[in-house]
Amino acid sequence: MNEALFTANNVWMLFSTVLVFVMHLGFASLEAGFVQKKNTVNILFKNAMIIAIGLLTYYFCGFNLMYPGTNPGGFFAFGGFGLSMPEGTAGAIDYAGGGYTYWTDFIFQAMFAATAATIVSGAVAERIKLDAYLIFAAIFVAVFYPITGFWKWGGGWLETAGFYDFAGSTIVHAAGGFAALAAVILLGPRHGKYTSKGIRPIPGHSMPLAAIGVFLLWFGWFGFNGGSVLSADPVGVSLVFVTTALAAAAGAVGAFITSYALFKSHDLSMVLNGILGGLVGITAGADLMGPGEAILIGLIAGVIIPFSVVFFDKIRIDDPVGATSVHLMCGIWGTLAVGIFGAKAGLGQLWTQLYGVAAVGAFAFVTAFGLMYLLKVTIGIRVPREHEERGLDVAEHDMHAYEAPAEQTGYALSVK
Amino acid sequence: MNEALFTANNVWMLFSTVLVFVMHLGFASLEAGFVQKKNTVNILFKNAMIIAIGLLTYYFCGFNLMYPGTNPGGFFAFGGFGLSMPEGTAGAIDYAGGGYTYWTDFIFQAMFAATAATIVSGAVAERIKLDAYLIFAAIFVAVFYPITGFWKWGGGWLETAGFYDFAGSTIVHAAGGFAALAAVILLGPRHGKYTSKGIRPIPGHSMPLAAIGVFLLWFGWFGFNGGSVLSADPVGVSLVFVTTALAAAAGAVGAFITSYALFKSHDLSMVLNGILGGLVGITAGADLMGPGEAILIGLIAGVIIPFSVVFFDKIRIDDPVGATSVHLMCGIWGTLAVGIFGAKAGLGQLWTQLYGVAAVGAFAFVTAFGLMYLLKVTIGIRVPREHEERGLDVAEHDMHAYEAPAEQTGYALSVK
Amino acid sequence: MNEALFTANNVWMLFSTVLVFVMHLGFASLEAGFVQKKNTVNILFKNAMIIAIGLLTYYFCGFNLMYPGTNPGGFFAFGGFGLSMPEGTAGAIDYAGGGYTYWTDFIFQAMFAATAATIVSGAVAERIKLDAYLIFAAIFVAVFYPITGFWKWGGGWLETAGFYDFAGSTIVHAAGGFAALAAVILLGPRHGKYTSKGIRPIPGHSMPLAAIGVFLLWFGWFGFNGGSVLSADPVGVSLVFVTTALAAAAGAVGAFITSYALFKSHDLSMVLNGILGGLVGITAGADLMGPGEAILIGLIAGVIIPFSVVFFDKIRIDDPVGATSVHLMCGIWGTLAVGIFGAKAGLGQLWTQLYGVAAVGAFAFVTAFGLMYLLKVTIGIRVPREHEERGLDVAEHDMHAYEAPAEQTGYALSVK
Repeated sequence: MNEALFTANNVWMLFSTVLVFVMHLGFASLEAGFVQKKNTVNILFKNAMIIAIGLLTYYFCGFNLMYPGTNPGGFFAFGGFGLSMPEGTAGAIDYAGGGYTYWTDFIFQAMFAATAATIVSGAVAERIKLDAYLIFAAIFVAVFYPITGFWKWGGGWLETAGFYDFAGSTIVHAAGGFAALAAVILLGPRHGKYTSKGIRPIPGHSMPLAAIGVFLLWFGWFGFNGGSVLSADPVGVSLVFVTTALAAAAGAVGAFITSYALFKSHDLSMVLNGILGGLVGITAGADLMGPGEAILIGLIAGVIIPFSVVFFDKIRIDDPVGATSVHLMCGIWGTLAVGIFGAKAGLGQLWTQLYGVAAVGAFAFVTAFGLMYLLKVTIGIRVPREHEERGLDVAEHDMHAYEAPAEQTGYALSVK
Repeated sequence: MNEALFTANNVWMLFSTVLVFVMHLGFASLEAGFVQKKNTVNILFKNAMIIAIGLLTYYFCGFNLMYPGTNPGGFFAFGGFGLSMPEGTAGAIDYAGGGYTYWTDFIFQAMFAATAATIVSGAVAERIKLDAYLIFAAIFVAVFYPITGFWKWGGGWLETAGFYDFAGSTIVHAAGGFAALAAVILLGPRHGKYTSKGIRPIPGHSMPLAAIGVFLLWFGWFGFNGGSVLSADPVGVSLVFVTTALAAAAGAVGAFITSYALFKSHDLSMVLNGILGGLVGITAGADLMGPGEAILIGLIAGVIIPFSVVFFDKIRIDDPVGATSVHLMCGIWGTLAVGIFGAKAGLGQLWTQLYGVAAVGAFAFVTAFGLMYLLKVTIGIRVPREHEERGLDVAEHDMHAYEAPAEQTGYALSVK
Repeated sequence: MNEALFTANNVWMLFSTVLVFVMHLGFASLEAGFVQKKNTVNILFKNAMIIAIGLLTYYFCGFNLMYPGTNPGGFFAFGGFGLSMPEGTAGAIDYAGGGYTYWTDFIFQAMFAATAATIVSGAVAERIKLDAYLIFAAIFVAVFYPITGFWKWGGGWLETAGFYDFAGSTIVHAAGGFAALAAVILLGPRHGKYTSKGIRPIPGHSMPLAAIGVFLLWFGWFGFNGGSVLSADPVGVSLVFVTTALAAAAGAVGAFITSYALFKSHDLSMVLNGILGGLVGITAGADLMGPGEAILIGLIAGVIIPFSVVFFDKIRIDDPVGATSVHLMCGIWGTLAVGIFGAKAGLGQLWTQLYGVAAVGAFAFVTAFGLMYLLKVTIGIRVPREHEERGLDVAEHDMHAYEAPAEQTGYALSVK
């Protein structure tokens, strides 16, 4: 490994880092677009704080829980608070096989970690208490996510068991999706969503914002998957770009056809979530598939989306942005697809994939449920009904998202 | 060529790929901003599907039509369906002279190809039938665009003839613009645009969306032109950045001054299209010009924009976003500018540029016209007048772009 | 230095260049979100023109004023109009120690330069005359910014004096902030902002736009600070990414806690400006700090924001977007922090930092004040009161930002 190759690798990883960072803007835009106008400031506030809290808590202890450098094959280890740079590695080409520096390692993983918490925020939107959510997100990124992350990427027992998850269909997306499911069960649906007359749609307030969000997530996913090669290896990263792009494209087509067949209309939100479903689906095996396999995986993910959205509504799991369909369902699908298609396909692998996602899912669900329950019986997790009806922007932020009446806004209430 | 340089080159090409991807978000935002509120979901839907369909059809046959690897100097060749990786090239440094891998080659070109179809969508917005448009776009990216692409970039007869088009003023932009012109002629103007009392402006519904779109297109253009160097050659790519940026800047100034002189107002949409005009104009010769020449080319492109917009309105070519002015007019201008300014300037070259753009334009116009005509006499290409008046969002998508009434939205219409 | 490393370095610098370019979209979105609906087209127009004018004027004379290559330790030098490439350097690996090419040098610095002018536009929004502002911005980027830039980065007297400013807490942000302050003083507050009954908030019209702007600025800041390493040195650039990200995160938390303590509400605009404050704060020493120090610097910057916003309102400096708090106050803080934390901390350094920022601030304030004053007494700098009340979009642009009445829009007024 020479300095030039090390430098090129590190450039790639930092390029991927900023792309993953953009996913936070993608989530913020998508979720803002899919909520009602009266809750827009609230969801933006949550998304701005999640990335901030996520980076800080991952620095504080998450990184060293996920990559403790000890206990190979185990369930838990901790490398200490803060960052603990290995002796003499700061400038060493031999850190991570010349793929990147210690700092790059941290910041790339930190951006990743924060996305897991963001997945939850869409599902619980429009009725969760802000402070409860921020505490939940902090602990999720600081402790829960890193533990199952360690199982696989930190060299723990799932790694030893042969479980495969290239960039996190399970470790990031299904884990986030299971946590979201636990949170939604405890939180309950928005008032008026499920009535005696059936399911009442509560449409988002801005399709342009939602579409911008999905495009930015796709954009960022090139870093999410491309960076997971952990070097700039030309064949590796370019194959991942091809499979990622084609799966997303096929996800759009799958959702387009399926939703048209089911609902007889060209449903933009289904197509947007189909793209995301394709992306989540390819994530576990983006480096193992050929282009044709990537298209199949994405297509099936796209088909899953409309069925899943209807399914969750039938069982009264109220998820304003479809996060459970996208991240949980397609995360499971993508994890299993590694045992069905591509370089590792086989019954044995399929079985390993199944218990891997089940184990991570169970851990994420149980810990998220436990923490949310604790918050519910202490500070409470749901806003008062009148706050939900007035909208969280005014009730919790003293702000309007658009064209506020001067009398009702921001800090000037206090300083005048 | 060593591994490190190959890696750095490939990083550059993939970086350029994601920038070109972002152009699709740019087009989506720009077109959404320039249409009426009631057609916003429709244009977003179209743009989300175009990138999906474009990637898939370019994989299916477009790439091997454009780069068949046979018939040098010819008019047509086909390398087979799907991707057909040359023997042993996946990891070989000697593919493309060490500039990038086979996968990178495909994905960069696929992102490029999809932009050509997107150019059309803006011009036909607000009255074209969704399904007709998607069929048109699929065939355009799968067959028509690759054929003229082969003429030049695949080593066909225009390449042999000495025609120069660095990154596609003709191959992408004028081709897309001629196709747009053909489509608009067959489609006719929006109802109420040209009345007995004169031209009635139909303003776009969101200038912030339009401005975001133009900035994102400019952003992406650094990859569109920068990646067209086909390696990370330091002098090559950095010169292209300079000429691209200065031409865009000069385009803004040219359109600013001209539109102020013509209309006595500071017209934002002219300035935005002036930026795009400057970018389209520099694209054919971004690697041949010095900074001063780039400024001149961009300035003239910016001056062209307001005159062209007025001209197309005078001849009743109704183009809601100005795509014909930006891509067709400035694409022609940029192509000719290669014969006037810079390293290849000369009468002989100018003549070659002229018949190159004429040949590609004729092919694009005739094939697009033929296909659109076929669609018109079969499934129809124009929405019913009442759909146009109600807006396509409700008529074709059962959705509103903003703050939808719950009763009229999305899939829940079918599942309640 | 071999070709591969040179190439990787240059890729990094151009990657950083496009990120800094995106900051202009960030500023445009942020400022558009924080102004009233009726002034949206105007602020978008200004931001589109500033990047255009900035690039052109920096090409015309700014670059050669800032990096004249002569008069080391001095106050002023000029290398001639246009670009003047040193003999034989275009392709030479030895230009800038192999960090980048001459063209890269220019375009990276040009993107930087234009940000300084943009800082002013937010502070003077909603009442400044467009033409006066554009003249001001052109001269600021062409002459004033490069002169103080030369003092430090061009090798002038501040560099000799040991003043440290890694990426421009002083040279870009405080300079822009002081210029903004001068402009606001001459311009006066918006009508109705400060009344006999106290401060009247004038809330921005779109929090989603403001949030998108801040995320994009954070995104771009990775290039602003990352590119200021002036090569792709793996340890250097990755450490800067870590400190930049953590300072921004801590800025959000600092502003969150402080504004909650002061105003008892979760104020989104404070958190957004807290992020920006953290970014401005870390900019002077992003390469000198460890992660813990970066967090402290960002946290303090975040705490400064709400106090500063209240302070400027108390002294009737009307700044619609908080640019003086973010760029001026946190720019000063970040500059001083270099003397307090990190590798260069020390009383001597703190003193040097203090007079450095004072010197640059004094120059920026005095020259900006002088130029604005000249404009005030000649063409005037403030729009008529009735224009301010109707909104600048209609009064100066004949346009509406959203859903315009057809009769009142754009160029068709003139051509019908």
